[in-house]
Amino acid sequence: LYYDLNTNEFVWIDTRQLPWNEVYIRTKDYNRVARAIKDMEIRGAPAIGVTAAFGLTLAAVHSKAKRAEELMNEIKEAYGVLAATRPTAYNLFWALDRTWRAAQRAFEVENDADAIREAVLREAFTIYVEDVENNVNMGRNGAKLIDNGDRIVTHCNTGSLATAGFGTALGVIRYAWHEGKSIKVYADETRPLLQGARLTVWELKKDGIPVTLIVDGASGLLFRRGMADLAIVGADRITLSGHVANKIGTYNLALAANANGKEFYVAAPTSTIQPVVGEDSIVIEERSPDEVKTVLGRLTITVDDVEAWNPAFDITPPELVSGIITEKGVARRPYEKTLKEIIGLTE
Amino acid sequence: LYYDLNTNEFVWIDTRQLPWNEVYIRTKDYNRVARAIKDMEIRGAPAIGVTAAFGLTLAAVHSKAKRAEELMNEIKEAYGVLAATRPTAYNLFWALDRTWRAAQRAFEVENDADAIREAVLREAFTIYVEDVENNVNMGRNGAKLIDNGDRIVTHCNTGSLATAGFGTALGVIRYAWHEGKSIKVYADETRPLLQGARLTVWELKKDGIPVTLIVDGASGLLFRRGMADLAIVGADRITLSGHVANKIGTYNLALAANANGKEFYVAAPTSTIQPVVGEDSIVIEERSPDEVKTVLGRLTITVDDVEAWNPAFDITPPELVSGIITEKGVARRPYEKTLKEIIGLTE
Repeated sequence: LYYDLNTNEFVWIDTRQLPWNEVYIRTKDYNRVARAIKDMEIRGAPAIGVTAAFGLTLAAVHSKAKRAEELMNEIKEAYGVLAATRPTAYNLFWALDRTWRAAQRAFEVENDADAIREAVLREAFTIYVEDVENNVNMGRNGAKLIDNGDRIVTHCNTGSLATAGFGTALGVIRYAWHEGKSIKVYADETRPLLQGARLTVWELKKDGIPVTLIVDGASGLLFRRGMADLAIVGADRITLSGHVANKIGTYNLALAANANGKEFYVAAPTSTIQPVVGEDSIVIEERSPDEVKTVLGRLTITVDDVEAWNPAFDITPPELVSGIITEKGVARRPYEKTLKEIIGLTE
Repeated sequence: LYYDLNTNEFVWIDTRQLPWNEVYIRTKDYNRVARAIKDMEIRGAPAIGVTAAFGLTLAAVHSKAKRAEELMNEIKEAYGVLAATRPTAYNLFWALDRTWRAAQRAFEVENDADAIREAVLREAFTIYVEDVENNVNMGRNGAKLIDNGDRIVTHCNTGSLATAGFGTALGVIRYAWHEGKSIKVYADETRPLLQGARLTVWELKKDGIPVTLIVDGASGLLFRRGMADLAIVGADRITLSGHVANKIGTYNLALAANANGKEFYVAAPTSTIQPVVGEDSIVIEERSPDEVKTVLGRLTITVDDVEAWNPAFDITPPELVSGIITEKGVARRPYEKTLKEIIGLTE
């Protein structure tokens, strides 16, 4: 995904159509961007954050407002639309808040519509570039935890398609691979939307990193048989206590690794960290039952009138998390202390 | 599934086509029966056992052999074909051995081809009828563990379609329901072959028992949120130490229940119990990667040339198993003592 400065359009690959079709979509309309987030054409917490920032950019740049106040109202409206797309990924709100504050500063200092447009565009680009940098730093920090020969289990997709570029958990894997470590990845297929089978396998194949696909239920046997050495996943939201919200099935994977004495790592930029303790603040998005009753809307797999429960995320408690890999270093338990240090909060 | 005495044919419903089509298949050919087991038109450990016994029956009844020795050779050949279908379900070998021994007794006592045919047919029918009886007794024993209002998670299919009739884990659920208990079932979809989504939901809907479908990765959050009270599954093989081989994903479910202080029960007839200790004797069948790379061969979900690992079963260790429900009672830890008592083995 990227922002095209020539046309002032936001451009992305529709991940729902991968690996079958590489379809690029471009728009000037922030409502279309909001729909892309909601319908998961764009997914992955860091990618959602970057996209939301560019959504505000589209709203600002293409607004016909001449007066600064009028423009601020339109940006605020776009903020509301973009914030209402998905409730769990913390990066969404973090990126919207950060871009909004940049607009407010320009409004307060210059009180000029074009200055606000410029500030919003600049902030979105900063978030975009920082995300790539953060991923690479995360990769460097995380790769130290990976030994030559390691067999790594991952869940969902946390690569270029889930970020501005490079990836979080997949970024760590990539970094280790580029260091010359001989590694092998087991990718959970990640039902219901199969981001592992569709996106992670596709990305790893492109890089030439050895990957074997498994169903989500096979991770237990994999660890029990000694066929895997560690797990690394991304995160949609992490609280200061080390509670990790991530794609449904992550908690089951964490249990499988821990039950067999293996490390379970989370890789995420500090923008994923919500500065509160506990898990009560974490809203788990529940999506349409049709995602469970079908495979990608293409094949119905059950009887028509059955109920289905479709939480998009689960929560892994801190006692199962061996470490949280961020761009600023690896946090270890007790997370309330180490995560506060990493994000620069002092008691 | 049943044996048609009028035509001497074995008849079954092709479970691969459920819930879309109810297709009944009938044959006089034991090789066709072996294929039905191998290709999973018929699946579920008790159903596989009963089917194998009737496979030997078809071989005996339709053999042109006049001499007893000749017939015994043909039955032995059929035994080999039927035994080579699937390696994990212990009931397969148990039922073949039992039927073979009945043939041998008739051979030794009467040395007459028709007497052998009669003995094989009779033994297969006994195994069939006993399986239904065992399921009902298992249901009675297991239903005592289910409280009014319980929300029960199950994995794969363990109902009428997996047995001669009634079901193992699903038999327990049925029994509790018919006792008038208000219960609710969460069915794991059970990738890769989706026996939960296709078969368990279909059976429970027919009985009017409330059921909600979930992806396999959602069981962790389900238990963590306090939305489920216990889990009950079937088994393909249980050893005296209480190691339970069952459909891939069972171990992950057991971890999810146990991590949240909930009971995890296994329901299986004693014919599932292999009288050895430990798990080294358990061969885990590995099936075609295509089952993982597609959904039921109907939809490809990943890139063409990726590797996939497709173990059909996993092993749940005894420390995660709250009780083993059999037709003769519920065994509790230490299983080596209680299972020996139940199957009548004395030290």
